[in-house]
Amino acid sequence: MSDKIRVTVWGENVHEQKNETVRKVYPEGMHACIAKGLAEDQELKVRTATLQEPEHGLTKAVLDETDVLTWWGHTAHKQVEDAVVDRIQERVLGGMGLIVLHSGHFSKIFKRLMGTSCALKWREAGERERLWVCNPGHAIARGLGECFELPQTEMYGEPFGIPNPDEVVLVSWFEGGEVFRSGCCWRRGAGQVFYFRPGHETYPIYYDQNVKLVLKNAVKWARPEGAWAEPLKAPNVPTEQAREKIVAKGPSLHKPGQQGFR
Amino acid sequence: MSDKIRVTVWGENVHEQKNETVRKVYPEGMHACIAKGLAEDQELKVRTATLQEPEHGLTKAVLDETDVLTWWGHTAHKQVEDAVVDRIQERVLGGMGLIVLHSGHFSKIFKRLMGTSCALKWREAGERERLWVCNPGHAIARGLGECFELPQTEMYGEPFGIPNPDEVVLVSWFEGGEVFRSGCCWRRGAGQVFYFRPGHETYPIYYDQNVKLVLKNAVKWARPEGAWAEPLKAPNVPTEQAREKIVAKGPSLHKPGQQGFR
Amino acid sequence: MSDKIRVTVWGENVHEQKNETVRKVYPEGMHACIAKGLAEDQELKVRTATLQEPEHGLTKAVLDETDVLTWWGHTAHKQVEDAVVDRIQERVLGGMGLIVLHSGHFSKIFKRLMGTSCALKWREAGERERLWVCNPGHAIARGLGECFELPQTEMYGEPFGIPNPDEVVLVSWFEGGEVFRSGCCWRRGAGQVFYFRPGHETYPIYYDQNVKLVLKNAVKWARPEGAWAEPLKAPNVPTEQAREKIVAKGPSLHKPGQQGFR
Amino acid sequence: MSDKIRVTVWGENVHEQKNETVRKVYPEGMHACIAKGLAEDQELKVRTATLQEPEHGLTKAVLDETDVLTWWGHTAHKQVEDAVVDRIQERVLGGMGLIVLHSGHFSKIFKRLMGTSCALKWREAGERERLWVCNPGHAIARGLGECFELPQTEMYGEPFGIPNPDEVVLVSWFEGGEVFRSGCCWRRGAGQVFYFRPGHETYPIYYDQNVKLVLKNAVKWARPEGAWAEPLKAPNVPTEQAREKIVAKGPSLHKPGQQGFR
Repeated sequence: MSDKIRVTVWGENVHEQKNETVRKVYPEGMHACIAKGLAEDQELKVRTATLQEPEHGLTKAVLDETDVLTWWGHTAHKQVEDAVVDRIQERVLGGMGLIVLHSGHFSKIFKRLMGTSCALKWREAGERERLWVCNPGHAIARGLGECFELPQTEMYGEPFGIPNPDEVVLVSWFEGGEVFRSGCCWRRGAGQVFYFRPGHETYPIYYDQNVKLVLKNAVKWARPEGAWAEPLKAPNVPTEQAREKIVAKGPSLHKPGQQGFR
Repeated sequence: MSDKIRVTVWGENVHEQKNETVRKVYPEGMHACIAKGLAEDQELKVRTATLQEPEHGLTKAVLDETDVLTWWGHTAHKQVEDAVVDRIQERVLGGMGLIVLHSGHFSKIFKRLMGTSCALKWREAGERERLWVCNPGHAIARGLGECFELPQTEMYGEPFGIPNPDEVVLVSWFEGGEVFRSGCCWRRGAGQVFYFRPGHETYPIYYDQNVKLVLKNAVKWARPEGAWAEPLKAPNVPTEQAREKIVAKGPSLHKPGQQGFR
Repeated sequence: MSDKIRVTVWGENVHEQKNETVRKVYPEGMHACIAKGLAEDQELKVRTATLQEPEHGLTKAVLDETDVLTWWGHTAHKQVEDAVVDRIQERVLGGMGLIVLHSGHFSKIFKRLMGTSCALKWREAGERERLWVCNPGHAIARGLGECFELPQTEMYGEPFGIPNPDEVVLVSWFEGGEVFRSGCCWRRGAGQVFYFRPGHETYPIYYDQNVKLVLKNAVKWARPEGAWAEPLKAPNVPTEQAREKIVAKGPSLHKPGQQGFR
Repeated sequence: MSDKIRVTVWGENVHEQKNETVRKVYPEGMHACIAKGLAEDQELKVRTATLQEPEHGLTKAVLDETDVLTWWGHTAHKQVEDAVVDRIQERVLGGMGLIVLHSGHFSKIFKRLMGTSCALKWREAGERERLWVCNPGHAIARGLGECFELPQTEMYGEPFGIPNPDEVVLVSWFEGGEVFRSGCCWRRGAGQVFYFRPGHETYPIYYDQNVKLVLKNAVKWARPEGAWAEPLKAPNVPTEQAREKIVAKGPSLHKPGQQGFR
């Protein structure tokens, strides 16, 4: 591990280019705003990557040098190449942290890691959201009060199609009457995964001080604390290398030295 | 729910056709043997399906009439069509139980639902395995003693690349010195998933009384206790239908009635 | 297991006797109302027990014949004898289901089984509560719509001092701006535990159709599906009874046949 | 948080005084040996406390200055005062890490935090144990190989009466044929809890390099990453301080300003 936590902020960067409303809020792109917020913290070393770059900016070299990846996407989930998703998944299993933001709930990488629908209810009415802290002692809640508010947000409502989280850090209350598990933690292999709900592109969510604080905290929480080398490997243990002496008995399917089936 | 639990036993049915050793152990195919074991229980109504059938025998109609699906595959995981995997996943999220057997740890459907590598160590030496019950009061352990033995098995060893199970019902001890979480439970959407380790095709594992008992118990445990209709849907809630009266404020990305992005 | 699920509804039965407001809402006691609601279901066989009875009505004989115990208490938690709490805990670990209601979050038995503070925020303002279903396919949500409302409730707010639930079935939205994990599942030993938030004694909560439905569903979900006999036992396995032949080596602390320390 | 992680190593210190075999292995007491092993790590600042000291050496002041507490006890669990157990529990909920060692599975504090029997099988035959790493990327497994061996240990066997762990880091294989979940993680409130199986007092377990490494790793993993101030508090939120404007309706049980019942 490096001295600083190396963060790569990934952004889809589509609506910022096409939609006047979004461009006004995020003239340099949402990824740039998110990166800037994180870079306020001296412990973090932040870079960005976008859909439009070769390999979406997430080459093997970039991922190998990334401790935590943040992911914002919305309209172009399907344009993300499967090979890149495979690569991200392998890095998460190997120890890289992943922070999935807002509409990223339907990204290929989040659905891949969860194995569920990741579906939810939604409404775009610019209503008020209040996020309550469920565990004030959790690393991701550090420095927050008992709750914080966003004056205008898109609503996401339960049921949220996710596996039961290892910890629910934040639950949202919406003006229109819904609730949502807005800050959820999972471990996948050696990697920590955090989903954080706020972030609709027509509101200045990523300029909010509490949102920025949650993101900084989440990156630190998700930093690797170890590594699972070659997490996809399924090694054969030859009989003569068994920890206890055994003698092979009975019929075999595999020839000595043959790889397992996948 | 029907009176009887409707079980579909899926078998890859490849080695039984090609490999003399396997054919001798399972002359009618492994799926037939597994189905026969389950059918001993009067509460279960059992059918089979195999890779070679159209749509692998798992049409929408078959899955809609299936309460619990059991899955054995090994050498032909890649031949399972993605469209069928999608369909199974949707049914699991909707409430169908899934029992994944032995080398099925590398099946597309199990990897899909887990989101992890599902990798493990292995050795084919016909060694002794002893499966210990970790929760004697669990539905899947009903009728078992404190442990049971299989005289000849393929070894699977930790680390097993899975998300933390909701419950570990069985842990294996191997003659050669390894251990393995051999009976693991997860919930995905409305569906219960159970992974059960034993089942190598060159040994008569599925004739074993304790193995048969675990399978019967697991099917009953995994039966649907409810249903999540259309689990993939992500419905918009129009502002005027919000549970609390709200007035839409600020800019919008979506036009009224527009679907969300996926 | 008996044909019918045997439910014991436990009630503290104090405010009903002392407080005019509560007596008007529940003239026969809250336990009687809860029992009546459950007894509408033909699959359930319901009895009651109260604080004032000898051993609080929860003798060993009663608990042995109880499949699921429901618990409502508020002002007299400290009057529940520790010996009875011990007995309930042992029965839960052995397989009995436990449904803890509303202010029962501070009962001895719930705090005992959780190991945490079980604390929460609260406000008694008769405000509106809306309970959202987080998993429409869960057994406890069967027959509910996407949400249901209670016109007047006491508010309970996060943070709720509990271990991460195995599943969160319901999350509440409150008129005053808070949220709460209102329907939570855990397993302790062989027993299923469900916490259900609504139930303040000055409002007619237990007459509500949706509340009654949740309670019926919860009792069925929590019914024993197996048993862990003598869950507190920590048996010694003599060397000569080891599953694999071993020879005792080195110094010992215990003499042959001696019990372990507790 | 201080610069160094402040560890308090608690030891029962009874067998070391009374039993010749144990004294030979741990002439200065087991706590001294454990503390010495931890102190090899420059990031840790280590002190000890024992049963015989006033308040068992765990005054409020000591606990307030403790980031992580390790606990070894065996024959004198009952002599630990409940008031001290209360205090430790509150500190764990508030954020202090807790590492429970070997026979500490039956300590008051571990049973308190788990809520279950914490029972297990056991045999004192000096047999061989091999601990397998289930997640090579977990912070607690850092620097370990795929497994490590202890030539002589007391056996602990499943079923282990614990709530399902958040993560199982180590599973043991025993020469005599049993298995055990030997390294288990839970969160309770803001505190991380780790149970680590090895440590019988008649064998030199705590001199073992791998055991020492696990303990160092576990302490770092369990260090507070935040704090839950006053975790036992259940604050009333007065109607006029509700986040959304509400008007109190209907009858009340509590008078304004009255505390909730416990």
